Amino acid sequence: MLAKADGVIAGLAVGCRAFSLIDHRIVWEPHVDDGAVVTAGTPIATILGSARGILTGERVALNLIQQLSGTATLTRRFVDLVAGTGARIVDTRKTTPGLRTLEKYAIRMGGGYNHRIGLYDAVLIKDNHLAAGGGVLATVRAAREGAPHTMKIEVECKSLDQVDEAIESRADIILLDNMDLDTLSVAVGRVRAGGSALTEASGGVNLTTVRAIAETGVDLISVGALTHSAPALDISLDFELG
Amino acid sequence: MLAKADGVIAGLAVGCRAFSLIDHRIVWEPHVDDGAVVTAGTPIATILGSARGILTGERVALNLIQQLSGTATLTRRFVDLVAGTGARIVDTRKTTPGLRTLEKYAIRMGGGYNHRIGLYDAVLIKDNHLAAGGGVLATVRAAREGAPHTMKIEVECKSLDQVDEAIESRADIILLDNMDLDTLSVAVGRVRAGGSALTEASGGVNLTTVRAIAETGVDLISVGALTHSAPALDISLDFELG
Amino acid sequence: MLAKADGVIAGLAVGCRAFSLIDHRIVWEPHVDDGAVVTAGTPIATILGSARGILTGERVALNLIQQLSGTATLTRRFVDLVAGTGARIVDTRKTTPGLRTLEKYAIRMGGGYNHRIGLYDAVLIKDNHLAAGGGVLATVRAAREGAPHTMKIEVECKSLDQVDEAIESRADIILLDNMDLDTLSVAVGRVRAGGSALTEASGGVNLTTVRAIAETGVDLISVGALTHSAPALDISLDFELG
Amino acid sequence: MLAKADGVIAGLAVGCRAFSLIDHRIVWEPHVDDGAVVTAGTPIATILGSARGILTGERVALNLIQQLSGTATLTRRFVDLVAGTGARIVDTRKTTPGLRTLEKYAIRMGGGYNHRIGLYDAVLIKDNHLAAGGGVLATVRAAREGAPHTMKIEVECKSLDQVDEAIESRADIILLDNMDLDTLSVAVGRVRAGGSALTEASGGVNLTTVRAIAETGVDLISVGALTHSAPALDISLDFELG
Amino acid sequence: MLAKADGVIAGLAVGCRAFSLIDHRIVWEPHVDDGAVVTAGTPIATILGSARGILTGERVALNLIQQLSGTATLTRRFVDLVAGTGARIVDTRKTTPGLRTLEKYAIRMGGGYNHRIGLYDAVLIKDNHLAAGGGVLATVRAAREGAPHTMKIEVECKSLDQVDEAIESRADIILLDNMDLDTLSVAVGRVRAGGSALTEASGGVNLTTVRAIAETGVDLISVGALTHSAPALDISLDFELG
Amino acid sequence: MLAKADGVIAGLAVGCRAFSLIDHRIVWEPHVDDGAVVTAGTPIATILGSARGILTGERVALNLIQQLSGTATLTRRFVDLVAGTGARIVDTRKTTPGLRTLEKYAIRMGGGYNHRIGLYDAVLIKDNHLAAGGGVLATVRAAREGAPHTMKIEVECKSLDQVDEAIESRADIILLDNMDLDTLSVAVGRVRAGGSALTEASGGVNLTTVRAIAETGVDLISVGALTHSAPALDISLDFELG
Repeated sequence: MLAKADGVIAGLAVGCRAFSLIDHRIVWEPHVDDGAVVTAGTPIATILGSARGILTGERVALNLIQQLSGTATLTRRFVDLVAGTGARIVDTRKTTPGLRTLEKYAIRMGGGYNHRIGLYDAVLIKDNHLAAGGGVLATVRAAREGAPHTMKIEVECKSLDQVDEAIESRADIILLDNMDLDTLSVAVGRVRAGGSALTEASGGVNLTTVRAIAETGVDLISVGALTHSAPALDISLDFELG
Repeated sequence: MLAKADGVIAGLAVGCRAFSLIDHRIVWEPHVDDGAVVTAGTPIATILGSARGILTGERVALNLIQQLSGTATLTRRFVDLVAGTGARIVDTRKTTPGLRTLEKYAIRMGGGYNHRIGLYDAVLIKDNHLAAGGGVLATVRAAREGAPHTMKIEVECKSLDQVDEAIESRADIILLDNMDLDTLSVAVGRVRAGGSALTEASGGVNLTTVRAIAETGVDLISVGALTHSAPALDISLDFELG
Repeated sequence: MLAKADGVIAGLAVGCRAFSLIDHRIVWEPHVDDGAVVTAGTPIATILGSARGILTGERVALNLIQQLSGTATLTRRFVDLVAGTGARIVDTRKTTPGLRTLEKYAIRMGGGYNHRIGLYDAVLIKDNHLAAGGGVLATVRAAREGAPHTMKIEVECKSLDQVDEAIESRADIILLDNMDLDTLSVAVGRVRAGGSALTEASGGVNLTTVRAIAETGVDLISVGALTHSAPALDISLDFELG
Repeated sequence: MLAKADGVIAGLAVGCRAFSLIDHRIVWEPHVDDGAVVTAGTPIATILGSARGILTGERVALNLIQQLSGTATLTRRFVDLVAGTGARIVDTRKTTPGLRTLEKYAIRMGGGYNHRIGLYDAVLIKDNHLAAGGGVLATVRAAREGAPHTMKIEVECKSLDQVDEAIESRADIILLDNMDLDTLSVAVGRVRAGGSALTEASGGVNLTTVRAIAETGVDLISVGALTHSAPALDISLDFELG
Repeated sequence: MLAKADGVIAGLAVGCRAFSLIDHRIVWEPHVDDGAVVTAGTPIATILGSARGILTGERVALNLIQQLSGTATLTRRFVDLVAGTGARIVDTRKTTPGLRTLEKYAIRMGGGYNHRIGLYDAVLIKDNHLAAGGGVLATVRAAREGAPHTMKIEVECKSLDQVDEAIESRADIILLDNMDLDTLSVAVGRVRAGGSALTEASGGVNLTTVRAIAETGVDLISVGALTHSAPALDISLDFELG
Repeated sequence: MLAKADGVIAGLAVGCRAFSLIDHRIVWEPHVDDGAVVTAGTPIATILGSARGILTGERVALNLIQQLSGTATLTRRFVDLVAGTGARIVDTRKTTPGLRTLEKYAIRMGGGYNHRIGLYDAVLIKDNHLAAGGGVLATVRAAREGAPHTMKIEVECKSLDQVDEAIESRADIILLDNMDLDTLSVAVGRVRAGGSALTEASGGVNLTTVRAIAETGVDLISVGALTHSAPALDISLDFELG
């Protein structure tokens, strides 16, 4: 198994299961670990065993590893661009149906961090919830009352007025959505001054804009494209008769 | 369906499914809602339909409702005992295998609050983790680095020294385990003085001791017995030919 | 793994699976067998392996073993109370949803015997069925005609008249429900005189009453509390770095 | 849907699900009920709906109904042959993997009765168990001690000596396996004289021999061929454009 | 495990799983391979292990192997009858619900070949589809346009006119259904002359007619009875104490 | 639900299930059908119902529809580029694990055609198989002998010599992999001259090269990027209080 483009490898642990589930005698010898940065031509793993078993599992293994490596590779590009700023690149729930857990793993292999996993491990109040809940202050307070004490509450703000309300509500994390750089800087400053909440930027984040966003001092930058639009990393399997 | 003892009802929504899954024409008419406080003899629901369907579903429905009502009833007794103190009664992960979600629902029906649901929605560092992780400060810091920013970190302390370390580590919640009342009061005072962490008491909590524990000013009191040792509430189904 | 209270251990075989399913290299060394009578402080098992695997499986293993040991412990108390009378303590279908098979196993570990497992392995005609079926004689006969010849038929009687009808119907087992001790004795005598049916007592059975019930000569005493209201046995896991 | 041969119909209730699961708007109008005796050419059901849905479900529906009707048809032939003798035709566990429940239903539709369903609803001690258990008397007694009191115990006998032992063991049912007619008659007589056990004949039962076997007075005759070798009943679906 | 009748063995690989899934220490020593022609009395396999495990798995293993060997045995009889003609015996979708894959395997073990597996791996246009689709030519063309280029298209013809249309439509396979021998010969000749389509005969195929059908020169003969009406091959398990 | 970019919509039928499975009372009113070409700002569907249900299902619905619309959109771009040439754009098995069926549906919504679905509905002999099988002629012949007569056989060729062998082998489809345009033209010509096999081009296919490839006269062009590297189409859900 060979990389045919530069990138970050992810998914070997699960990809190799495609072979062992078909034929437990197939031997998988990895040459790199998940998270490794590779260049085109790097051998990734050697697979030894019956032609039938390897040919049966090949496509499933490659589909998994290519997809997850594509996600890790794109993550790494974002992470490298914000190096030194203190901002973390985090994922979203805009994941491929059925593959969320694996994609969140690939994010970490690319140097990113995970946001919440689903609706059950943190409260994220977005514009649609604010519309249903009656504004930032009321909605955060209702969430605090209803949620377990173990759960953090994040609220999305699109304006500085909302940010002020969010600070007052003592939300744990404040999501600054689709703000221009100047507004973002002001918002980050107000949150810092107003307490211990974390700040997160989202919207309009791409490889061109991410550095400037990070330089506003925001703690976290979430990027949906990491999981919904990362192209697969080209990886192939070459066959040799034993 | 009739209560044969005093208590709090929980599980009607899921219990009635035992009938509708067997025969969708069976009509379920509830007379009380989940969370209702009932006395022996109170009618809970009327079930109309074929004898065959009702007799087939009866045992499953009663097993669910009796068990969950037992949990809600015991929770309510603890909650009533701490009334006015500001302490919340919370559950643990010491739940019946397979029924955690339903038991956590019954806790809320009894007036309690939920602690974390599993290993995935909050970090709780206990004595065994501290042994493996090298003390309070080091373990909390490692958890902070590895966990998503959306996740709260709680740490168990058995001594005031550990409490001091926990405050320094900026843990979100500090679990005060098996402390006598005086130590507990001191610990609660130190945490209040040292920041914004929540305090939780556990160990040796029963119907006799819970009030005094609550009066130390602790924010949360967790009680394993709510889910592992609550006796079922006696409920029966009487049959009438239509 | 250590008992923290006196009782009967049950569930080790299934509890240890919580570890092996997470990490097959974890070694489980039991110090006692299911069914063992232990005192507080008795070591139950030693678990060797990675901290991560053990900490992940710990709660599931303990929840299972505590619950099942609680059931076994309560069963043993009933069984000891009827020692020498010839009566068997048996369970009911009032079990925890999802855990019936394991709880019925725990009953046996506590010295009890199992009643039928579900609706499919014996016919038990209760008051609700009698109301739907038209009395003891008619209902037993209809059941005999419809059921496989391999299936025993038990019928619940609340009065001596019903007992007489049950004897006439040639039911295999006669359940004497909620009778006072005198009536129970008479009923047992009539059944003995009238054929080969087994007698079973139910209703109002607790640790105070069970001995007197057994002394009426009844063959079986069924106790719902064994599975719906047994408190968990306190068991804990202490961690040592290797 | 049309019968193309004479026989007994079974499986309509489950066969029609093949259509409703694909398209809930398909209307199924049965012209006969399960258990109906039909002749070649009898319309069984009319199916109304989209061509796509009907053509997709057709094969699954026919496979089920043909197979189950084949079983019911063969059962009916055996049942008719023993009419008036008092013997019941019963099935065995020699069923098609995955279809046991449905085949046991088809047996009843053909006028037969069910034997036990699996290993869990009655004890049947066969020659292999006797070899492992140490003879009829010892094995029946061990089974009686270990099994719930709700469970009947049947034991297979190949000789009159074993029958005597079985009577002594108070087994509930005595299976007389592969005996010639004279031995069978003697065995039935001894069991009658010795108590209340039921008698069952097996081995060498076919359409030619079943009447004579029934006339020995045996209570039950079990026939494996009903479920393992019944040819399908020919049924077809003719299509008309609406 | 012993054959008690002459036949072809199939299903050993899956039958032995009944034992290993129950107790992985049970040793399975096959004496013949799937596809072997055996006579009554031939030992098929020796199974070594605990009595409990073997007795638990016995019935499932025998049910599978008897059924599949019955299918293989009947297939072999048809295959032998057409020896030397060039015609292949193929199966249909008239299989036992749940066992299609295994039965198609048994067909191959008996020397037959598989037809398509389901609705997804080839297009077979039958009379009902022709009624819905508007004749042979229109229906084949519509199928060609809608189906992947990787899929063959077969069309059922009941008359020579339909055969001519099928040739014109360039169908890949032409199914000649329920034709008398003379018509069948003419049809086969026309298809040969008109292109490269394969010919398949169906309807009225049994052990008496199959040879004459094969001698018309048809490429394939499909037989539903192979899977829906093959009687089980008698196989038993004899027990020896170790 | 609103398109925020130009593209082709796919997945509405499955996306709307995310809402109905959560709350069957939620009403889904689509404004376009799958396959519709939309511009940024086009309303796609209106969803009416409780805020809780809609907010719970929102992310799953959007993830599915965005991903599948992304695939349909990219497919449409390729299809438009080859308009008028007679070549079909087809997919590959390089799909997202778990979503193959849905992605193959999206391909059709974008105007493409499906290649085989898995390993079970056509034989595709690739370089790795040729290495294991001993060259084009031998491998195709072995496949023909082993495969059902209903299955087409495709073989991958990288050189004109292999193409000649493939023609001789009478493969049904010849895959011309990674050939330059001139070689491709020659290959297509030879296949046309040599029989009725279909030709398929793969390798190095992108939006820049696809037109020239189509103009060589090849029948099919397969493009892995359609399913492994299509970016999601931006679609959002705006909330209005009723």
